[in-house]
Amino acid sequence: MKFIKTPVKGMCDMLPSDMRLREKVFSMIKDSYSKYGFMQIETPAMEHIENLSSKQGGDNEKLIFKVLKRGQSLTSALEKGAYDDIADNGLRYDLTVPLARYYANNADKLPSPFKALQIGSVWREDNPQKGRFRQFTQCDIDVLGDESNLAEIELVAATANMLIKIFKGFEVSGLTVHINDRRILRAICLMAGFGEDDIANVLVSLDKFDKIGFDGVRSELIANGYGEECVDKYLGVFKNADGADCMAFCENIPEEYLNGKVRESVNDIILSASAMVDGNVNIVFDPTLVRGMGYYTGTIFEISIDGYNFSIAGGGRYDEMIGKFSGNSVPACGFSIGFERIITILKDMMGEGMKIDSNSLAILVHKNVSTKQKVALFARAKTLREEGKTVSVFPMKKNMNAQFKKLEEEGYAEFEKVYPEENN
Amino acid sequence: MKFIKTPVKGMCDMLPSDMRLREKVFSMIKDSYSKYGFMQIETPAMEHIENLSSKQGGDNEKLIFKVLKRGQSLTSALEKGAYDDIADNGLRYDLTVPLARYYANNADKLPSPFKALQIGSVWREDNPQKGRFRQFTQCDIDVLGDESNLAEIELVAATANMLIKIFKGFEVSGLTVHINDRRILRAICLMAGFGEDDIANVLVSLDKFDKIGFDGVRSELIANGYGEECVDKYLGVFKNADGADCMAFCENIPEEYLNGKVRESVNDIILSASAMVDGNVNIVFDPTLVRGMGYYTGTIFEISIDGYNFSIAGGGRYDEMIGKFSGNSVPACGFSIGFERIITILKDMMGEGMKIDSNSLAILVHKNVSTKQKVALFARAKTLREEGKTVSVFPMKKNMNAQFKKLEEEGYAEFEKVYPEENN
Repeated sequence: MKFIKTPVKGMCDMLPSDMRLREKVFSMIKDSYSKYGFMQIETPAMEHIENLSSKQGGDNEKLIFKVLKRGQSLTSALEKGAYDDIADNGLRYDLTVPLARYYANNADKLPSPFKALQIGSVWREDNPQKGRFRQFTQCDIDVLGDESNLAEIELVAATANMLIKIFKGFEVSGLTVHINDRRILRAICLMAGFGEDDIANVLVSLDKFDKIGFDGVRSELIANGYGEECVDKYLGVFKNADGADCMAFCENIPEEYLNGKVRESVNDIILSASAMVDGNVNIVFDPTLVRGMGYYTGTIFEISIDGYNFSIAGGGRYDEMIGKFSGNSVPACGFSIGFERIITILKDMMGEGMKIDSNSLAILVHKNVSTKQKVALFARAKTLREEGKTVSVFPMKKNMNAQFKKLEEEGYAEFEKVYPEENN
Repeated sequence: MKFIKTPVKGMCDMLPSDMRLREKVFSMIKDSYSKYGFMQIETPAMEHIENLSSKQGGDNEKLIFKVLKRGQSLTSALEKGAYDDIADNGLRYDLTVPLARYYANNADKLPSPFKALQIGSVWREDNPQKGRFRQFTQCDIDVLGDESNLAEIELVAATANMLIKIFKGFEVSGLTVHINDRRILRAICLMAGFGEDDIANVLVSLDKFDKIGFDGVRSELIANGYGEECVDKYLGVFKNADGADCMAFCENIPEEYLNGKVRESVNDIILSASAMVDGNVNIVFDPTLVRGMGYYTGTIFEISIDGYNFSIAGGGRYDEMIGKFSGNSVPACGFSIGFERIITILKDMMGEGMKIDSNSLAILVHKNVSTKQKVALFARAKTLREEGKTVSVFPMKKNMNAQFKKLEEEGYAEFEKVYPEENN
């Protein structure tokens, strides 16, 4: 029999120490969001291939693991040579497409607005590389059916507080929520003289500001054929207003480009969310924040910490996407938490795997122990467990030292050995 | 764009009330087993198709959702017409094959014996019917590397106590752990005069005892061509020992058919596990318990409750299976919890969905509320959340009554409305 010991390429076996850390973070996420009224939901791992290929998934649509049709429908597709038609389902590559389908299917059974929390695996046929896997966990929170900025406020505050909780006890500095609005980005482009059709391209360059600075962005825009005057006017808006809050930054953008309510709303979000956030979290207006996804329509946000050049959460408002799926327009705003990134950071900081609760006892039992002795020792184990101790009863192995070592590695703190009583 | 709102056939969207119940049961399962030293692990949803088709999965191997190869390897398989070779992976249909692979891959990093807890989805292309789905959750606990009956004792006690915890507050009666041993079943067959080759067949009939009684079993065995004398001798063993404990039941089985240590071990398991179990759980010797799976080699167990004609957990010792995968012989014993069955029973008993924590407040906010008012109300929400209350801030909808109704259905107990202050 051919048997392969390793997991499927690009996927992981989770060891106990991995699972302890992941489960702890899962439960912090669930607890935090539930206090804000977010409700957990779940969708199947598989979705109809038509839904996954609906052009909402961007490049991820090239990375779908497709599930083969079965029985007669497979046979006839193969006989016809209809090779594009041999898969009917695919594994989901994100939680957004499933959420759109879920809401279209279940909205009448849900409160409105609906505050959803999803935690689940997604699959992408990506090239495996350090820290990137073909199966990984996503964690999305979304508010559906709320056109007001209460959605943004709750999302930002809940997520910031959740991260504070997770990183408590670790030396994390510079936890910052960056907030911007697509409509402000658009207004500045138009005001500087770019055309409506240039906006997407200009933003691709601005998005690189963190890496290449204003000079780099300027060179790239000019290399792309935009006029110097226009480019300098554009970048000048950012330079002149360095460090300004949203109200001040937008002050000089005429109403014809930007409805004054937009800057008030961004300001509102920052002030209200800040009132809910503990500890050293900065919630700041960041006019250079772009975020790649084309489907955002308003507010966008991203969370960073010092020392890591990737964001640990990001999101925004996407008022048109759910409607494309369901046919009914539904305002929507959400955050996607970089769960695997958070795990990577925590593992970095911990330096070693997460151990079991230190209030733990391993009892090693000799093979000749009598029934009477066993009954007594298990009754005692029962009492200790009821008092909150983790107790595990193991047979004594020949190589007891190796056995101890492994148990210590998992975190067992106390040991007991039970040998046969002479008088049994 | 073609968009399908319903989930893939035979799979479920989980509503918030479903998830609350499932999450509660998950956390009880995790807490219970962790006190006994079981460690959670996880394997990918996909396994190599070779491993899934290794004949260890029985009929489930006919129900595999296969994952299509990708890129060039798909193209060349299709061009060659090698239609059996167009899938390289499949979705797991149980947690046992993945556990065997996991242990073969990771044993050197794990304590020995290793006490594993797995909770995860499995997929089977079954015919969807009431209470049976194509994606469902399995929960398996296994002790690998323990040839002693400490494994059985811990498994039985931990599982019984976990079920007591889950059913606490519900009127569940007759919670019973049935214990038997394949070696005892075999010995009685041989003693009655059946041949070694008849055993599997005879047990198929005995397995129906619960449904068709001794008379039914007798008729079936005779219809299958077995002699009356042999059949009556066989069934006589069970009738004459009705209600006997294992020691008494096995007393008259000669040593040539059954090593005396087997009955002592079963007795040991029942006495020791009983010493650890609270409340009204019976742990009993049940000589007619068979369990279908061919891979069991010793003790077998099954848990039932009154009023349901299916078992809610079952398992046993399967000392040869892991070795078939890994090449190294590894004693193993496990329990599979019928998670979806437990959920079905709980939903039956609850009569309605599980609501959110009753300490919950929904604040409905009018759209014209000022930033100043929002900052104040969110600061108050923060304090209430820190005190343990679930607080959700929603925009006030035009149809506020419908909004209230849905929130009440989810379990919101308190409501507050915030209107603009006159003097803002």
